[in-house]
Amino acid sequence: MLLIKNIGILQTPIGKNSLCGSEQAQNLKLCNAAILIEGGKIVEVYKDGELPDLSGYADCQVLDAQNRLVTPGLVDCHTHMVFGGWRHNEIPLKLRGATYLDILKAGGGILDTVRHTRQMSEDELYEKSKGFAREMLLGGVTTVESKSGYGLNLDDELKQLRVNKRLNEQTPIDVVSTFLGAHAIPPEYKDKPDEYIDYLCDVVLPEVKRQNLAEFCDVFCEDSVFDVEQSKKMLLCAKKYGMGCKIHADEIEAIGGAVLAGELGAISAEHLIATNGQGIDSMAKGGVTAALLPATSFYLNKTYAPARQMIEKGIPVAIASDFNPGSCPSLNLQFAINLGYLKYRMLPEEILTATTLNAACAINRGQTIGSIEVGKQADLVIWDAPNFEMICYRFGSNQVKTVIKKGEIIQ
Amino acid sequence: MLLIKNIGILQTPIGKNSLCGSEQAQNLKLCNAAILIEGGKIVEVYKDGELPDLSGYADCQVLDAQNRLVTPGLVDCHTHMVFGGWRHNEIPLKLRGATYLDILKAGGGILDTVRHTRQMSEDELYEKSKGFAREMLLGGVTTVESKSGYGLNLDDELKQLRVNKRLNEQTPIDVVSTFLGAHAIPPEYKDKPDEYIDYLCDVVLPEVKRQNLAEFCDVFCEDSVFDVEQSKKMLLCAKKYGMGCKIHADEIEAIGGAVLAGELGAISAEHLIATNGQGIDSMAKGGVTAALLPATSFYLNKTYAPARQMIEKGIPVAIASDFNPGSCPSLNLQFAINLGYLKYRMLPEEILTATTLNAACAINRGQTIGSIEVGKQADLVIWDAPNFEMICYRFGSNQVKTVIKKGEIIQ
Repeated sequence: MLLIKNIGILQTPIGKNSLCGSEQAQNLKLCNAAILIEGGKIVEVYKDGELPDLSGYADCQVLDAQNRLVTPGLVDCHTHMVFGGWRHNEIPLKLRGATYLDILKAGGGILDTVRHTRQMSEDELYEKSKGFAREMLLGGVTTVESKSGYGLNLDDELKQLRVNKRLNEQTPIDVVSTFLGAHAIPPEYKDKPDEYIDYLCDVVLPEVKRQNLAEFCDVFCEDSVFDVEQSKKMLLCAKKYGMGCKIHADEIEAIGGAVLAGELGAISAEHLIATNGQGIDSMAKGGVTAALLPATSFYLNKTYAPARQMIEKGIPVAIASDFNPGSCPSLNLQFAINLGYLKYRMLPEEILTATTLNAACAINRGQTIGSIEVGKQADLVIWDAPNFEMICYRFGSNQVKTVIKKGEIIQ
Repeated sequence: MLLIKNIGILQTPIGKNSLCGSEQAQNLKLCNAAILIEGGKIVEVYKDGELPDLSGYADCQVLDAQNRLVTPGLVDCHTHMVFGGWRHNEIPLKLRGATYLDILKAGGGILDTVRHTRQMSEDELYEKSKGFAREMLLGGVTTVESKSGYGLNLDDELKQLRVNKRLNEQTPIDVVSTFLGAHAIPPEYKDKPDEYIDYLCDVVLPEVKRQNLAEFCDVFCEDSVFDVEQSKKMLLCAKKYGMGCKIHADEIEAIGGAVLAGELGAISAEHLIATNGQGIDSMAKGGVTAALLPATSFYLNKTYAPARQMIEKGIPVAIASDFNPGSCPSLNLQFAINLGYLKYRMLPEEILTATTLNAACAINRGQTIGSIEVGKQADLVIWDAPNFEMICYRFGSNQVKTVIKKGEIIQ
């Protein structure tokens, strides 16, 4: 049993489903609050200086928040955190003006990461990503989604997904696993994307499912990668196996990914930098959460996804890090929060919802995490700040004071 | 005595003066290197696996760099790190589109920080900025410049400068003090900038000098702040007292600050986002170092200073954090390094020079720090990275493994 007392402001979205439109800005704010935790869950929330009678509970641990801000633990709903190598060697190419697709077409970029990921053992990948998971946790992220997609064959995709499983089981952070075999066309299937999709649908996905290694299936629907038909085939196959659907949509060109997301009722569409009115309408109709990745726009010197427009159209917006070695070598979700304010022009309350409840819903965890409510998992952050405006405003410093994961204080 | 061995790559600029033009990209890179330190200074540098004979030195501490990158300690040559309050309450105004000058004209912005700084005691300011100094040091910054400019009267300017002095004397980081009384027009001199400059020249600066509390004098030469004539008067007065001159120049409008910097032979001109060909020519002629502050451009959603153009014109470029509560609430110089690559399109070697030797020269420390050379102070960073490209490429994580300050290992 743990009591967190003297919470200056307790700020949280409320609910088990995504918040959209004007709802997204609705945060509950309690002053002089306290949270009682038992069995890893929140059992009571107090405000205005109220406290439980603990006279019968001599063993209750008490943590004094010293008037600080407490929010739900952050949820990073889009990462590629299991990978071999890095891509700092692309700097000279990029300084000469090469784009992501230029580098990809030249056989570099993601294919370089695929080579390194294939070369690494499962243990090596686990050790590397365990370090990332630890850093994320200390940065306030209590649940993270992790995609495969650097193996691009049966053995190496399964290897990546097993690393996700081990991270989930053997480290404090919760890891939600997504199969992204359709992340790029591997060298073995160069110029044969249809055959590769067939291979994924016929060989890899069934085995992923048999071993229960992923909850979601994602696909990179983009010019020069997988077109709408190929993406649709992949995701319909995933649906057949009962997996949730995600789509990397309209990152570079609006080729129809967001429209497809709405049509298929995908749980989320990701990136959406280039999306248009048709894509937004389809997502709104299909109940799709927009998982926006502002640090990728930042790193690639791109424009930013039209977050305000999506919010106004009633689409629930989540914000994630997109940590990956190519287009976003940053695992810092607090920096994505800064960008939510600076570049998306979102309100602090909208941003908190985007990085807690809406992000949880984007990985089907709205029932159990993403808000501070009785019955939910006790995943919390005590911030070294008086309010969430400070988290949006200061950048470049880790503003986390203490992380609580399933009721345990992370040291 | 300390030996750092097994340095994978030792990378450093070389020299005691600023490097300009193509020189700025010239870094010495030694493989399998080692550094011998005694009395806080570098006494020998080894390469290609060579090591000193330590048989007569049983007490020599040995630090194994485990094949990592070692560079000079970073130098942050432009900060405003001693201040009261924060300015997260400006978020609603900024989301409605208010500019820096809008907020300033409405009596907010910097004047809000002035109010809070005046209210805080010297001890309170010291404790607050000591935390920043510690975080900077752990981020690889071994020397930092710190400006006054939030007191704007005799007592409170001296108070800020005494905090600089205490930080320098009582914490491991070296702090170089700059008097920036002419940072804004205080409420007491509203609409009377000439009278305020007279007050600074006649009353405040002489006392600063008498108490030996600052090496440099800086002025905010900008539309709605101090014009060129006022700035010139302030800096000529500082020169009379033997102080080095710095100018906040052409941040918002090119009103002539960079031109003045060149004419006066200022040691540095800062910001320079809006500078033009005339300003660049004058700086080149006057031997002025350009201290560029990319995180401020980032935070204010501005364009970026024309760094490449300056380098091509033979101006030594330094990069600094500009940490301050208004226009750049980030003390993270590694993030400024990322921006040097991403936004200024500078080469990694140029960026290393910009954040070590050229930054040292911008605060008149080129003789003693800023490069790894025999006789210089042993201020070093061991990076958790194989090369400096990695420091430019990864963002959002502190990539420092170990900091060495005057030969001492910082824990």
